[in-house]
Amino acid sequence: MDERLKQQLDFALEIDKEKNIFRQTHLSGHGRNENDAEHAWHMAIMAYLLQEYANEPVDIGRVMLMCLIHDIVEIDAGDTYAYDTEGLKTQKAREDAAKERIFSLLPEDQKQKLTQLFDEFEEFQTPESKFAHAMDNLQPLLLNNSNGGGDWREHGVSAKQVYGRQQKTRQGSEKLYQVTDQILKEHIRKGNLKE
Amino acid sequence: MDERLKQQLDFALEIDKEKNIFRQTHLSGHGRNENDAEHAWHMAIMAYLLQEYANEPVDIGRVMLMCLIHDIVEIDAGDTYAYDTEGLKTQKAREDAAKERIFSLLPEDQKQKLTQLFDEFEEFQTPESKFAHAMDNLQPLLLNNSNGGGDWREHGVSAKQVYGRQQKTRQGSEKLYQVTDQILKEHIRKGNLKE
Repeated sequence: MDERLKQQLDFALEIDKEKNIFRQTHLSGHGRNENDAEHAWHMAIMAYLLQEYANEPVDIGRVMLMCLIHDIVEIDAGDTYAYDTEGLKTQKAREDAAKERIFSLLPEDQKQKLTQLFDEFEEFQTPESKFAHAMDNLQPLLLNNSNGGGDWREHGVSAKQVYGRQQKTRQGSEKLYQVTDQILKEHIRKGNLKE
Repeated sequence: MDERLKQQLDFALEIDKEKNIFRQTHLSGHGRNENDAEHAWHMAIMAYLLQEYANEPVDIGRVMLMCLIHDIVEIDAGDTYAYDTEGLKTQKAREDAAKERIFSLLPEDQKQKLTQLFDEFEEFQTPESKFAHAMDNLQPLLLNNSNGGGDWREHGVSAKQVYGRQQKTRQGSEKLYQVTDQILKEHIRKGNLKE
Protein backbone atom coordinates (compact mmCIF):
# COMPACT_ATOMS: atom_id res chain seq x y z
CA MET A 1 0.00 0.00 0.00
CA ASP A 2 1.43 3.42 -0.81
CA GLU A 3 2.34 5.78 2.03
CA ARG A 4 -0.38 8.35 1.33
CA LEU A 5 -3.21 5.81 1.47
CA LYS A 6 -1.68 4.20 4.55
CA GLN A 7 -1.71 7.57 6.34
CA GLN A 8 -5.35 8.15 5.36
CA LEU A 9 -6.43 4.74 6.63
CA ASP A 10 -4.43 5.16 9.85
CA PHE A 11 -6.28 8.40 10.48
CA ALA A 12 -9.63 6.75 9.64
CA LEU A 13 -8.93 4.05 12.21
CA GLU A 14 -7.73 6.55 14.83
CA ILE A 15 -10.92 8.60 14.73
CA ASP A 16 -12.91 5.46 15.57
CA LYS A 17 -11.96 6.37 19.17
CA GLU A 18 -14.31 9.36 19.06
CA LYS A 19 -17.14 6.86 19.59
CA ASN A 20 -15.82 6.34 23.12
CA ILE A 21 -15.93 10.01 24.11
CA PHE A 22 -19.16 10.53 26.02
CA ARG A 23 -20.97 13.80 26.54
CA GLN A 24 -23.27 15.04 29.28
CA THR A 25 -26.28 14.95 26.95
CA HIS A 26 -28.59 11.93 27.12
CA LEU A 27 -30.28 10.34 24.12
CA SER A 28 -34.01 10.87 23.70
CA GLY A 29 -36.28 8.48 25.56
CA HIS A 30 -34.17 9.05 28.71
CA GLY A 31 -31.42 6.99 27.10
CA ARG A 32 -27.73 6.64 27.84
CA ASN A 33 -25.19 9.44 27.41
CA GLU A 34 -24.46 10.41 23.84
CA ASN A 35 -21.00 10.13 22.34
CA ASP A 36 -19.17 12.64 20.16
CA ALA A 37 -19.47 10.68 16.91
CA GLU A 38 -23.24 10.39 17.26
CA HIS A 39 -23.51 14.06 18.15
CA ALA A 40 -21.49 15.04 15.05
CA TRP A 41 -23.58 12.79 12.77
CA HIS A 42 -26.78 14.31 14.12
CA MET A 43 -25.49 17.89 13.74
CA ALA A 44 -24.45 17.31 10.12
CA ILE A 45 -27.89 16.03 9.08
CA MET A 46 -29.61 18.83 10.99
CA ALA A 47 -27.38 21.38 9.25
CA TYR A 48 -28.48 20.03 5.88
CA LEU A 49 -32.18 20.06 6.79
CA LEU A 50 -32.18 23.46 8.48
CA GLN A 51 -29.83 25.35 6.14
CA GLU A 52 -32.69 27.62 4.99
CA TYR A 53 -32.63 29.24 8.45
CA ALA A 54 -28.97 30.33 8.38
CA ASN A 55 -28.67 34.11 8.77
CA GLU A 56 -26.35 34.25 5.77
CA PRO A 57 -26.03 31.87 2.80
CA VAL A 58 -23.72 28.94 3.65
CA ASP A 59 -21.72 26.36 1.71
CA ILE A 60 -23.60 23.44 3.20
CA GLY A 61 -20.99 20.80 2.31
CA ARG A 62 -18.43 22.83 4.28
CA VAL A 63 -20.80 23.17 7.24
CA MET A 64 -21.48 19.44 7.26
CA LEU A 65 -17.80 18.52 7.17
CA MET A 66 -17.12 21.06 9.93
CA CYS A 67 -19.83 19.43 12.04
CA LEU A 68 -18.42 15.97 11.40
CA ILE A 69 -14.84 16.80 12.47
CA HIS A 70 -15.31 19.53 15.11
CA ASP A 71 -14.92 17.17 18.09
CA ILE A 72 -12.10 14.91 16.84
CA VAL A 73 -9.66 16.62 19.22
CA GLU A 74 -11.69 15.30 22.15
CA ILE A 75 -10.20 11.85 21.48
CA ASP A 76 -7.21 13.16 23.45
CA ALA A 77 -8.65 16.21 25.21
CA GLY A 78 -11.91 14.67 26.43
CA ASP A 79 -15.30 16.33 26.36
CA THR A 80 -15.50 19.61 28.27
CA TYR A 81 -19.05 20.24 29.46
CA ALA A 82 -20.35 23.60 28.28
CA TYR A 83 -20.89 24.73 31.87
CA ASP A 84 -17.70 23.29 33.44
CA THR A 85 -15.88 26.54 34.32
CA GLU A 86 -12.68 24.82 35.54
CA GLY A 87 -12.41 22.55 32.51
CA LEU A 88 -13.00 25.45 30.15
CA LYS A 89 -9.81 27.18 31.41
CA THR A 90 -7.53 24.43 30.07
CA GLN A 91 -9.68 23.35 27.13
CA LYS A 92 -7.83 25.28 24.43
CA ALA A 93 -4.36 24.03 25.39
CA ARG A 94 -5.57 20.42 25.58
CA GLU A 95 -7.35 20.66 22.26
CA ASP A 96 -4.44 22.34 20.46
CA ALA A 97 -2.10 19.51 21.40
CA ALA A 98 -4.69 16.96 20.30
CA LYS A 99 -5.26 18.74 17.00
CA GLU A 100 -1.56 18.62 16.21
CA ARG A 101 -1.17 14.95 17.08
CA ILE A 102 -4.30 13.61 15.40
CA PHE A 103 -4.36 15.62 12.17
CA SER A 104 -0.64 14.92 11.72
CA LEU A 105 -1.56 11.32 10.97
CA LEU A 106 -2.90 12.55 7.61
CA PRO A 107 -0.92 13.45 4.48
CA GLU A 108 0.25 17.07 4.77
CA ASP A 109 -2.34 18.57 2.38
CA GLN A 110 -5.24 16.93 4.20
CA LYS A 111 -3.77 17.82 7.59
CA GLN A 112 -3.77 21.46 6.49
CA LYS A 113 -7.33 21.31 5.19
CA LEU A 114 -8.85 19.70 8.27
CA THR A 115 -6.83 21.88 10.65
CA GLN A 116 -8.03 24.97 8.80
CA LEU A 117 -11.63 23.78 8.96
CA PHE A 118 -11.33 22.98 12.66
CA ASP A 119 -9.82 26.43 13.32
CA GLU A 120 -12.55 28.08 11.26
CA PHE A 121 -15.15 26.46 13.49
CA GLU A 122 -13.37 27.60 16.64
CA GLU A 123 -12.77 31.17 15.42
CA PHE A 124 -16.50 31.66 14.80
CA GLN A 125 -16.15 34.30 12.08
CA THR A 126 -17.54 32.80 8.86
CA PRO A 127 -21.23 32.16 8.10
CA GLU A 128 -20.44 28.42 7.95
CA SER A 129 -18.85 28.34 11.40
CA LYS A 130 -21.68 30.37 12.91
CA PHE A 131 -24.29 28.03 11.50
CA ALA A 132 -22.30 24.95 12.62
CA HIS A 133 -22.21 26.41 16.16
CA ALA A 134 -25.99 26.86 16.02
CA MET A 135 -26.23 23.11 15.33
CA ASP A 136 -23.75 22.36 18.12
CA ASN A 137 -26.15 24.11 20.50
CA LEU A 138 -29.50 23.10 19.02
CA GLN A 139 -28.80 19.37 18.75
CA PRO A 140 -28.29 18.73 22.50
CA LEU A 141 -31.09 21.21 23.28
CA LEU A 142 -33.52 19.09 21.23
CA LEU A 143 -32.52 15.94 23.10
CA ASN A 144 -32.55 17.59 26.51
CA ASN A 145 -35.91 19.20 25.77
CA SER A 146 -37.34 15.78 24.83
CA ASN A 147 -36.11 14.46 28.18
CA GLY A 148 -37.74 17.21 30.25
CA GLY A 149 -34.54 19.21 30.75
CA GLY A 150 -32.93 16.47 32.83
CA ASP A 151 -29.38 17.33 31.75
CA TRP A 152 -29.72 20.88 33.14
CA ARG A 153 -31.32 19.71 36.38
CA GLU A 154 -28.57 17.13 36.89
CA HIS A 155 -25.89 19.82 36.68
CA GLY A 156 -27.85 22.66 38.30
CA VAL A 157 -27.40 24.82 35.22
CA SER A 158 -28.91 28.31 35.29
CA ALA A 159 -30.94 30.09 32.63
CA LYS A 160 -28.24 32.76 32.50
CA GLN A 161 -25.60 30.17 31.63
CA VAL A 162 -27.72 28.65 28.88
CA TYR A 163 -28.67 32.01 27.42
CA GLY A 164 -25.00 32.98 27.39
CA ARG A 165 -24.13 29.97 25.28
CA GLN A 166 -27.16 30.34 23.03
CA GLN A 167 -26.01 33.78 21.85
CA LYS A 168 -23.87 31.83 19.39
CA THR A 169 -27.00 30.20 18.02
CA ARG A 170 -28.45 33.65 17.42
CA GLN A 171 -25.42 34.66 15.34
CA GLY A 172 -25.89 31.58 13.17
CA SER A 173 -29.66 31.63 12.90
CA GLU A 174 -32.09 34.19 14.27
CA LYS A 175 -34.99 31.86 13.46
CA LEU A 176 -33.54 28.90 15.35
CA TYR A 177 -32.68 31.19 18.24
CA GLN A 178 -36.37 32.11 18.50
CA VAL A 179 -37.25 28.43 18.85
CA THR A 180 -34.47 27.99 21.41
CA ASP A 181 -35.80 30.94 23.38
CA GLN A 182 -39.33 29.45 23.41
CA ILE A 183 -37.98 26.13 24.66
CA LEU A 184 -35.85 27.76 27.37
CA LYS A 185 -38.72 29.92 28.63
CA GLU A 186 -40.85 26.81 29.00
CA HIS A 187 -38.13 25.05 31.02
CA ILE A 188 -37.64 28.09 33.26
CA ARG A 189 -41.40 28.16 33.86
CA LYS A 190 -41.34 24.48 34.82
CA GLY A 191 -38.33 24.94 37.10
CA ASN A 192 -35.99 22.74 35.04
CA LEU A 193 -33.66 25.69 34.58
CA LYS A 194 -32.79 27.88 37.58
CA GLU A 195 -33.60 31.54 37.02
CA MET B 1 -43.41 27.65 15.71
CA ASP B 2 -44.44 27.30 12.07
CA GLU B 3 -45.48 23.91 10.70
CA ARG B 4 -42.51 23.47 8.38
CA LEU B 5 -39.92 24.00 11.11
CA LYS B 6 -41.91 21.79 13.49
CA GLN B 7 -41.82 18.94 10.95
CA GLN B 8 -38.07 19.38 10.47
CA LEU B 9 -37.40 19.30 14.21
CA ASP B 10 -39.71 16.29 14.69
CA PHE B 11 -37.68 14.43 12.06
CA ALA B 12 -34.43 15.53 13.71
CA LEU B 13 -35.61 14.12 17.02
CA GLU B 14 -36.90 10.90 15.42
CA ILE B 15 -33.56 10.02 13.84
CA ASP B 16 -31.93 10.15 17.27
CA LYS B 17 -33.20 6.56 17.52
CA GLU B 18 -30.63 5.46 14.95
CA LYS B 19 -28.08 5.59 17.79
CA ASN B 20 -29.82 2.59 19.32
CA ILE B 21 -29.53 0.38 16.24
CA PHE B 22 -26.50 -1.82 16.75
CA ARG B 23 -24.51 -3.59 14.07
CA GLN B 24 -22.44 -6.78 14.09
CA THR B 25 -19.21 -4.80 13.72
CA HIS B 26 -17.18 -4.08 16.85
CA LEU B 27 -15.30 -0.87 17.52
CA SER B 28 -11.51 -0.96 17.31
CA GLY B 29 -9.66 -2.05 20.44
CA HIS B 30 -12.06 -5.02 20.72
CA GLY B 31 -14.76 -2.59 21.80
CA ARG B 32 -18.52 -2.86 21.94
CA ASN B 33 -20.78 -3.24 18.91
CA GLU B 34 -21.03 -0.17 16.72
CA ASN B 35 -24.31 1.60 16.09
CA ASP B 36 -25.68 2.91 12.81
CA ALA B 37 -25.17 6.60 13.58
CA GLU B 38 -21.49 6.08 14.39
CA HIS B 39 -21.04 3.96 11.28
CA ALA B 40 -22.62 6.66 9.10
CA TRP B 41 -20.48 9.41 10.67
CA HIS B 42 -17.34 7.38 10.06
CA MET B 43 -18.29 6.60 6.44
CA ALA B 44 -18.96 10.27 5.64
CA ILE B 45 -15.54 11.40 6.89
CA MET B 46 -13.83 8.52 5.10
CA ALA B 47 -15.65 9.45 1.88
CA TYR B 48 -14.28 12.97 2.12
CA LEU B 49 -10.71 11.82 2.82
CA LEU B 50 -10.64 9.05 0.21
CA GLN B 51 -12.54 10.77 -2.61
CA GLU B 52 -9.42 10.85 -4.80
CA TYR B 53 -9.73 7.06 -5.15
CA ALA B 54 -13.27 7.04 -6.60
CA ASN B 55 -13.31 5.38 -10.03
CA GLU B 56 -15.27 8.32 -11.43
CA PRO B 57 -15.44 11.96 -10.25
CA VAL B 58 -18.04 12.36 -7.49
CA ASP B 59 -20.01 15.22 -5.95
CA ILE B 60 -18.55 14.67 -2.50
CA GLY B 61 -21.25 16.62 -0.63
CA ARG B 62 -23.84 14.30 -2.14
CA VAL B 63 -21.79 11.21 -1.22
CA MET B 64 -21.41 12.44 2.37
CA LEU B 65 -25.12 13.12 2.78
CA MET B 66 -25.92 9.72 1.27
CA CYS B 67 -23.59 8.08 3.79
CA LEU B 68 -25.19 10.00 6.66
CA ILE B 69 -28.77 8.98 5.84
CA HIS B 70 -28.40 5.53 4.23
CA ASP B 71 -29.30 3.61 7.41
CA ILE B 72 -32.14 5.77 8.78
CA VAL B 73 -34.69 3.15 7.71
CA GLU B 74 -33.10 0.72 10.15
CA ILE B 75 -34.77 2.64 12.99
CA ASP B 76 -37.86 0.59 12.09
CA ALA B 77 -36.39 -2.22 10.01
CA GLY B 78 -33.41 -3.07 12.22
CA ASP B 79 -29.91 -3.85 11.01
CA THR B 80 -29.68 -6.79 8.62
CA TYR B 81 -26.25 -8.41 8.84
CA ALA B 82 -24.57 -8.55 5.44
CA TYR B 83 -24.36 -12.36 5.65
CA ASP B 84 -27.79 -13.07 7.18
CA THR B 85 -29.45 -14.87 4.25
CA GLU B 86 -32.87 -15.18 5.92
CA GLY B 87 -32.99 -11.53 6.97
CA LEU B 88 -31.91 -10.38 3.53
CA LYS B 89 -35.08 -11.92 2.00
CA THR B 90 -37.41 -9.54 3.85
CA GLN B 91 -35.02 -6.57 4.11
CA LYS B 92 -36.40 -4.59 1.18
CA ALA B 93 -40.06 -4.77 2.28
CA ARG B 94 -39.15 -3.80 5.85
CA GLU B 95 -37.00 -0.92 4.69
CA ASP B 96 -39.55 0.40 2.19
CA ALA B 97 -42.20 0.70 4.90
CA ALA B 98 -39.71 2.43 7.20
CA LYS B 99 -38.64 4.83 4.49
CA GLU B 100 -42.22 5.92 3.92
CA ARG B 101 -42.99 6.40 7.61
CA ILE B 102 -39.81 8.17 8.64
CA PHE B 103 -39.23 10.49 5.66
CA SER B 104 -42.93 11.46 5.77
CA LEU B 105 -42.20 13.34 8.99
CA LEU B 106 -40.40 15.94 6.84
CA PRO B 107 -41.95 18.71 4.72
CA GLU B 108 -42.85 17.28 1.30
CA ASP B 109 -39.89 18.79 -0.60
CA GLN B 110 -37.36 17.42 1.87
CA LYS B 111 -39.13 14.07 2.01
CA GLN B 112 -38.71 13.82 -1.77
CA LYS B 113 -35.04 14.84 -1.66
CA LEU B 114 -34.03 12.39 1.04
CA THR B 115 -36.12 9.56 -0.42
CA GLN B 116 -34.47 10.14 -3.78
CA LEU B 117 -31.02 10.12 -2.22
CA PHE B 118 -31.81 6.95 -0.26
CA ASP B 119 -33.10 5.26 -3.43
CA GLU B 120 -30.04 6.40 -5.36
CA PHE B 121 -27.83 4.68 -2.79
CA GLU B 122 -29.86 1.47 -3.01
CA GLU B 123 -30.04 1.44 -6.81
CA PHE B 124 -26.25 1.55 -7.07
CA GLN B 125 -26.08 3.21 -10.48
CA THR B 126 -24.46 6.62 -10.01
CA PRO B 127 -20.77 7.27 -9.27
CA GLU B 128 -21.83 8.78 -5.92
CA SER B 129 -23.79 5.70 -4.84
CA LYS B 130 -21.00 3.37 -5.92
CA PHE B 131 -18.43 5.29 -3.92
CA ALA B 132 -20.77 5.44 -0.90
CA HIS B 133 -21.14 1.66 -1.07
CA ALA B 134 -17.36 1.33 -1.13
CA MET B 135 -17.34 3.25 2.17
CA ASP B 136 -20.17 1.10 3.55
CA ASN B 137 -17.91 -1.92 2.99
CA LEU B 138 -14.50 -0.45 3.79
CA GLN B 139 -15.46 1.15 7.11
CA PRO B 140 -16.43 -2.09 8.93
CA LEU B 141 -13.56 -3.90 7.19
CA LEU B 142 -11.08 -1.45 8.74
CA LEU B 143 -12.54 -2.03 12.20
CA ASN B 144 -12.76 -5.79 11.81
CA ASN B 145 -9.20 -5.91 10.45
CA SER B 146 -7.97 -3.96 13.47
CA ASN B 147 -9.65 -6.55 15.70
CA GLY B 148 -8.06 -9.57 14.03
CA GLY B 149 -11.12 -10.46 11.96
CA GLY B 150 -13.17 -11.34 15.05
CA ASP B 151 -16.50 -10.35 13.48
CA TRP B 152 -16.03 -12.89 10.68
CA ARG B 153 -14.89 -15.65 13.04
CA GLU B 154 -17.87 -15.03 15.32
CA HIS B 155 -20.32 -15.54 12.43
CA GLY B 156 -18.33 -18.19 10.54
CA VAL B 157 -18.27 -16.02 7.43
CA SER B 158 -16.51 -17.42 4.36
CA ALA B 159 -14.05 -15.71 2.03
CA LYS B 160 -16.51 -16.30 -0.81
CA GLN B 161 -19.23 -14.36 1.04
CA VAL B 162 -16.95 -11.44 1.76
CA TYR B 163 -15.57 -11.32 -1.77
CA GLY B 164 -19.13 -11.33 -3.10
CA ARG B 165 -19.98 -8.26 -1.09
CA GLN B 166 -16.71 -6.52 -1.86
CA GLN B 167 -17.45 -6.53 -5.60
CA LYS B 168 -19.44 -3.38 -4.86
CA THR B 169 -16.30 -1.77 -3.44
CA ARG B 170 -14.54 -2.52 -6.72
CA GLN B 171 -17.22 -0.69 -8.69
CA GLY B 172 -16.76 2.36 -6.49
CA SER B 173 -12.99 2.30 -6.21
CA GLU B 174 -10.54 -0.06 -7.86
CA LYS B 175 -7.76 1.28 -5.65
CA LEU B 176 -9.63 0.66 -2.40
CA TYR B 177 -10.64 -2.77 -3.67
CA GLN B 178 -6.94 -3.62 -4.03
CA VAL B 179 -6.39 -2.75 -0.36
CA THR B 180 -9.47 -4.78 0.59
CA ASP B 181 -8.14 -7.73 -1.35
CA GLN B 182 -4.76 -7.53 0.45
CA ILE B 183 -6.49 -7.44 3.82
CA LEU B 184 -8.78 -10.37 2.97
CA LYS B 185 -5.91 -12.52 1.70
CA GLU B 186 -4.07 -11.97 4.96
CA HIS B 187 -7.15 -13.03 6.99
CA ILE B 188 -7.62 -16.14 4.84
CA ARG B 189 -3.97 -17.02 5.41
CA LYS B 190 -4.42 -16.65 9.16
CA GLY B 191 -7.64 -18.69 9.18
CA ASN B 192 -9.90 -15.81 10.28
CA LEU B 193 -11.93 -16.24 7.10
CA LYS B 194 -12.94 -19.71 5.98
CA GLU B 195 -11.79 -20.54 2.44
